[in-house]
Amino acid sequence: MIMSNEYPRISGIVPPMVTPIVSRDQLDHAGLEKLIEHILAGGVHGLFILGTTGEAPNLSYGVRRELIERTCKQVNKRVPVLVGVTDTSYSESIKLAKYAERSGADAVVIAPPYYLPTGQAELLEYFQSITSSMPLPVMLYNMPACTKINIELDTLRHILDHPRVIGFKDSSMQMVYFHGAVQLFADHPEKTILVGSEELLAEATLLGAHGGICGGANLFPQLYVDLYHAAVAGDLPTVRRLHSLVINVTKLYRVGRYSSSTIKGVKCVLACMGVCEDYMAEPFHRFRDHERKQVRDLLDSIKPMMCEA
Amino acid sequence: MIMSNEYPRISGIVPPMVTPIVSRDQLDHAGLEKLIEHILAGGVHGLFILGTTGEAPNLSYGVRRELIERTCKQVNKRVPVLVGVTDTSYSESIKLAKYAERSGADAVVIAPPYYLPTGQAELLEYFQSITSSMPLPVMLYNMPACTKINIELDTLRHILDHPRVIGFKDSSMQMVYFHGAVQLFADHPEKTILVGSEELLAEATLLGAHGGICGGANLFPQLYVDLYHAAVAGDLPTVRRLHSLVINVTKLYRVGRYSSSTIKGVKCVLACMGVCEDYMAEPFHRFRDHERKQVRDLLDSIKPMMCEA
Amino acid sequence: MIMSNEYPRISGIVPPMVTPIVSRDQLDHAGLEKLIEHILAGGVHGLFILGTTGEAPNLSYGVRRELIERTCKQVNKRVPVLVGVTDTSYSESIKLAKYAERSGADAVVIAPPYYLPTGQAELLEYFQSITSSMPLPVMLYNMPACTKINIELDTLRHILDHPRVIGFKDSSMQMVYFHGAVQLFADHPEKTILVGSEELLAEATLLGAHGGICGGANLFPQLYVDLYHAAVAGDLPTVRRLHSLVINVTKLYRVGRYSSSTIKGVKCVLACMGVCEDYMAEPFHRFRDHERKQVRDLLDSIKPMMCEA
Amino acid sequence: MIMSNEYPRISGIVPPMVTPIVSRDQLDHAGLEKLIEHILAGGVHGLFILGTTGEAPNLSYGVRRELIERTCKQVNKRVPVLVGVTDTSYSESIKLAKYAERSGADAVVIAPPYYLPTGQAELLEYFQSITSSMPLPVMLYNMPACTKINIELDTLRHILDHPRVIGFKDSSMQMVYFHGAVQLFADHPEKTILVGSEELLAEATLLGAHGGICGGANLFPQLYVDLYHAAVAGDLPTVRRLHSLVINVTKLYRVGRYSSSTIKGVKCVLACMGVCEDYMAEPFHRFRDHERKQVRDLLDSIKPMMCEA
Repeated sequence: MIMSNEYPRISGIVPPMVTPIVSRDQLDHAGLEKLIEHILAGGVHGLFILGTTGEAPNLSYGVRRELIERTCKQVNKRVPVLVGVTDTSYSESIKLAKYAERSGADAVVIAPPYYLPTGQAELLEYFQSITSSMPLPVMLYNMPACTKINIELDTLRHILDHPRVIGFKDSSMQMVYFHGAVQLFADHPEKTILVGSEELLAEATLLGAHGGICGGANLFPQLYVDLYHAAVAGDLPTVRRLHSLVINVTKLYRVGRYSSSTIKGVKCVLACMGVCEDYMAEPFHRFRDHERKQVRDLLDSIKPMMCEA
Repeated sequence: MIMSNEYPRISGIVPPMVTPIVSRDQLDHAGLEKLIEHILAGGVHGLFILGTTGEAPNLSYGVRRELIERTCKQVNKRVPVLVGVTDTSYSESIKLAKYAERSGADAVVIAPPYYLPTGQAELLEYFQSITSSMPLPVMLYNMPACTKINIELDTLRHILDHPRVIGFKDSSMQMVYFHGAVQLFADHPEKTILVGSEELLAEATLLGAHGGICGGANLFPQLYVDLYHAAVAGDLPTVRRLHSLVINVTKLYRVGRYSSSTIKGVKCVLACMGVCEDYMAEPFHRFRDHERKQVRDLLDSIKPMMCEA
Repeated sequence: MIMSNEYPRISGIVPPMVTPIVSRDQLDHAGLEKLIEHILAGGVHGLFILGTTGEAPNLSYGVRRELIERTCKQVNKRVPVLVGVTDTSYSESIKLAKYAERSGADAVVIAPPYYLPTGQAELLEYFQSITSSMPLPVMLYNMPACTKINIELDTLRHILDHPRVIGFKDSSMQMVYFHGAVQLFADHPEKTILVGSEELLAEATLLGAHGGICGGANLFPQLYVDLYHAAVAGDLPTVRRLHSLVINVTKLYRVGRYSSSTIKGVKCVLACMGVCEDYMAEPFHRFRDHERKQVRDLLDSIKPMMCEA
Repeated sequence: MIMSNEYPRISGIVPPMVTPIVSRDQLDHAGLEKLIEHILAGGVHGLFILGTTGEAPNLSYGVRRELIERTCKQVNKRVPVLVGVTDTSYSESIKLAKYAERSGADAVVIAPPYYLPTGQAELLEYFQSITSSMPLPVMLYNMPACTKINIELDTLRHILDHPRVIGFKDSSMQMVYFHGAVQLFADHPEKTILVGSEELLAEATLLGAHGGICGGANLFPQLYVDLYHAAVAGDLPTVRRLHSLVINVTKLYRVGRYSSSTIKGVKCVLACMGVCEDYMAEPFHRFRDHERKQVRDLLDSIKPMMCEA
């Protein structure tokens, strides 16, 4: 039985790591190692694998398990490792969570099942039941663009009372909603609320969030760590300067037109940087040559700003 | 290598079977046997398992495999068995399809990956690649409410040329779109287009579709078979009478408020009829007592019409 | 006070007339005259002006009034004239309806106010209040794509009891919904339900609708009249042939990419035919040269089919 | 001809005033006077009438004109008056703008036409044309929830070059989009970007916006003015305290369930405060007794916080 005070308090910058692969079912071992070291070198506060950015739903369970094991080994407790176990099947979620526990992960992250959407009452029941069955502490994950359901504030309020819930990641991109969610954490000082969109990291942290899960932190981890610290310290000039830089970084993901462009952009930049391969699992494919050229040009225009920052 | 002329031509009524379970990971063996016999007794032209109505994404892979094996055995080639293998992971789709082939299934049914949506170009590439890798003929499945992407007519036109594609099931509920899709089949007389909403079976079949995948055919298989035959024969008075009955049957699924209500309603009626259990896999739960009472009352009001029909 | 038995029963083909203009605030008088005669020559059963196809919301009230007056005069009671009076302002709706009555129109058509959407209860109250204040019988108009609210069946059921309501036009394009609506008319044999999408005219009429409000009937009025009569007569081979032709006609509207393309396509074809100008009120503009060429080529490919039909 | 340097630079808090009426077509004259004085007493920087909160589209043009005239007279140049002239008809927009100019208003505010949505190219053309025809400087207004179209950044970038455009109000509630828009103003120091949701005032102003158009400033104008000044001054503790109060104020608008609840809530509180009537133009109606009681109770719980603030 896990005691509440054993639970990690996850705050700060927790990058949602991309999954380096060389083919559909084959991890890029060398790339994974380099990527983890590249990210940890930026001073991040945790590592989140098998999220949306990690292409989790598109990977076979075999690849997911191997990724969990290798990541936990490589990180070796330097920071907490969070593992996404969102699934349409309750049993497969639990199975993966148990694997994560055995591999030494620190927490699991779970969004609502994402095929046929539930109502709020069923969602609450689902969260309560599966959280109780989880072998690790749980971070809830709101991702309505992919799950087709928003975790309403009333649902969140109730599930936050569950002792095994340690926090909430919101990727709704709705700051009006987010501010309502922040208020719910006043009664739960040991739990954390993290924002899932890097463009919102500055304001979220200035107004009560405990950090962010920022895709761009795969690329420039220190930028997000610095922005987070500046926001916590109330250093507004620095916040404004780094926030503006973050907005410019996100232009790297606007090269493609679809919702998958963020992942494609991040992987493409990592490949340009020589960190890891940018192969993607089906149904997606990496940026083609002309998009890669655009990314590279944008990258060249951003780098000088990064040095000044 | 499968030859094109070995392929079954799937037309008529192909019920999307619900999955009888007694608990999350436990099939209702007796119920499954009774349900299959109940459906086949209605004169249906095929059986589709592990679709949306079959709660496929919410079942563990173990349960899915057991269901495939038991269903194929029980049906024993009396009608073609179609197996849903839609998955967010390419590799897991293929794995399940191979299992279906070994179990004696006749075709697989596949919808687009359903977490992060693709663009049309990527979707076409995905379909072309995975269809080529499939060990069984493929029926495409359009289900935008769950997959967040509509298979546009241009995409459909291209993928229909693939020799291993034997047909298309459309659950978009958009008849304007459907009529455009029907026109594409003029060049493919050996392939079939089936409509996925029973309320649309009459008009779709009158205007060129080759049948339907009707959830209500779990309950009253002969009603849908009779409607299909009347539409093919151009017997409009019978079509109108049975169509009206079908619309009344669907009121059984409006007892609940959510998109899962159709499955809940069908399972609830089957339980009322003594065919099988109505337990549902998480995140859903069966209708509670007051909803079950409503369903039973509605059922009582429909039965007399059914006898006259 | 209007007596219920004085009310016209609107059934058959009622074209939603485009509004011929030569500039933003200037009617194309000669074109209007020719267009009306062109449409009436096809044997239509009514004429609907100032609907969505008529660009009503984009016209000044002055132009709307002039159009009402000229149309009523020109039609001269040969068929009923229906006038769209949908507005975000209750008072402006009433004002226009009074003008329509004085001009000799036969009925008004009204959709929900379309800026900030209401709930269903407010919508019902609104319809009940404004219908009671209307000087002419009322046809309700469901157009969720433009009004952001669907008139739910319960709301429709209640408002259908109002003695001044003579019918319902549904442009939701949702046949599942439409079939539910058709059932509500069983208790109101003197009222009519018309379908608002020409692609759905065949099936709607075969399964209980009383006709259609078809944009394409601006162009080829007899085609829709013939299809309507064939459907009423249960002549399925003719229905199928003409339905297929209708689907081909709609390709003329797919030249542009936006929801305004139907109006642009209809106006462009009318200009190609020499019936009237294709100028459009802001914020829209007519098809440019390359689109006009595409329309003309499509038209050339459709004409021979039209002759055979 | 208006010279660019004559244009007012609109920044700070510009309340979107509700329209006090005693019946559908009758202004509440006494209430209007009291409301204007109540708002101006809070130190606001401008007044915006006939926006969404002002129920503009639901008012007759007669009432709109009377409101413009009375407001301009009452304000008497103490602050700039902005007049919403958004309309589906180009000509009616221009007509109202001319009336506003003659009445002494300082600028007009215009959102895209809101019945049938345009594409971005047509929207840009529309804005360029109508802005050139406007007799007053123009503030653009992004309100996708009501207009069904988002003004994309590329469109905004182009129209910002128009000399008569003085600013941009964004009510999309999308801060990711907003940050992109803020960057466009770097090249236009004389133009302003205001945020349209009071919940976002703090972060928007901290990160580059020039103020906000806050519905709640009808009620507690000084709260928003103080928050704005604190944000401009970089006084984070005060920003956080007042931001939290603003979030609590918005609970007054969550009593109803629909998008009109904000207006209903604001009007209801004003009536409770004795400032003006809370009658609403159709299709809306004011909160009923039980909702009014809820609002009053919430108001009682907020007032003490307001005093401490």
